[in-house]
Amino acid sequence: MLTKEIYSKTCERALEYLNKAGIVVTEKEKSEMEVAEYGLNDVENIGLELIVYVNTDRCCAKELVLLPGQTCPEHRHPPVEGEAGKEETFRCRYGKVYLYVPGEPSKNPKAKAPKGSEEYFTVWHEIELNAGEQYTLSPDTLHWFQAGPEGAVVSEFSTKSRDDYDIYTDPRINPAQNRKV
Amino acid sequence: MLTKEIYSKTCERALEYLNKAGIVVTEKEKSEMEVAEYGLNDVENIGLELIVYVNTDRCCAKELVLLPGQTCPEHRHPPVEGEAGKEETFRCRYGKVYLYVPGEPSKNPKAKAPKGSEEYFTVWHEIELNAGEQYTLSPDTLHWFQAGPEGAVVSEFSTKSRDDYDIYTDPRINPAQNRKV
Ligand SMILES: [Zn+2]
Ligand SMILES: [Zn+2]
Repeated sequence: MLTKEIYSKTCERALEYLNKAGIVVTEKEKSEMEVAEYGLNDVENIGLELIVYVNTDRCCAKELVLLPGQTCPEHRHPPVEGEAGKEETFRCRYGKVYLYVPGEPSKNPKAKAPKGSEEYFTVWHEIELNAGEQYTLSPDTLHWFQAGPEGAVVSEFSTKSRDDYDIYTDPRINPAQNRKV
Repeated sequence: MLTKEIYSKTCERALEYLNKAGIVVTEKEKSEMEVAEYGLNDVENIGLELIVYVNTDRCCAKELVLLPGQTCPEHRHPPVEGEAGKEETFRCRYGKVYLYVPGEPSKNPKAKAPKGSEEYFTVWHEIELNAGEQYTLSPDTLHWFQAGPEGAVVSEFSTKSRDDYDIYTDPRINPAQNRKV
């Protein structure tokens, strides 16, 4: 669980990164920033900060902030009610993000699985995204990502976000309880 | 028609605005920037510059640049093959954009219809978007927009773009010939 103090401190740090990225957000958006910590109580290492710009039945756009070394845990977006799973494009706006997907595992991956959670990171094909670079993920594909040492700001363009349906590799994560990506 | 010279000069100016907005794009994206002039030969006044980040069957994201006073002409996105029309969210990243939609006409609209094309601008309910502000448009709704004197950079988040199906108020515009928004 997030204490109010950790929540506020984390948001404040995330706003600094949005600033560095030159991304303008309204006061209302600042006050509605979400901190995902996935119920793991280790937001420094496993977590991310996000502002949802729009999420209709058809499409969705968010700004994601990852503090230095912060990790979004491995998950996939399965089909729901006969519709293909969520399709996501990640576009790095600032910093560097290492994205991992199924495929040939990288020999020297730049990211490290968070300590104590190693077994819940199973795909290791690395895609490095620097500012201006992007990657589109097919629905229902396992993925996780981690910021480099300068942190990262990532725009996510996708179909509808239905967080409750996401499937995490880590059984300690309950999708119904936690905002996901 | 765009001459190569006007195309290059317009792109160069548009890149300056992306720079001012702090938006990083790759060399490949720069080289693939599109200039929409709608076949009207008046790109200074009726036109816009765009980079398409992603456009799949399900969703689409673009960066739009409007030079100072530049106008995207009035149009709507009708249903196609039984699917609702394109749904668009415009998020202003830099500068100021005046967006016009159906509704109570503004008494003192900030934008002016481009000279000689007045009759093709029929909706006058004004929505002013400054950096960090956004508006989501329902499918099949008439809309047009114009940048303020400092120009504007606008992120567009939407369902699939099917330019050929767009309907313009100005009968001189042929959707099949021109990239649209
Ligand atoms: Zn995801
Ligand atoms: Zn449009």
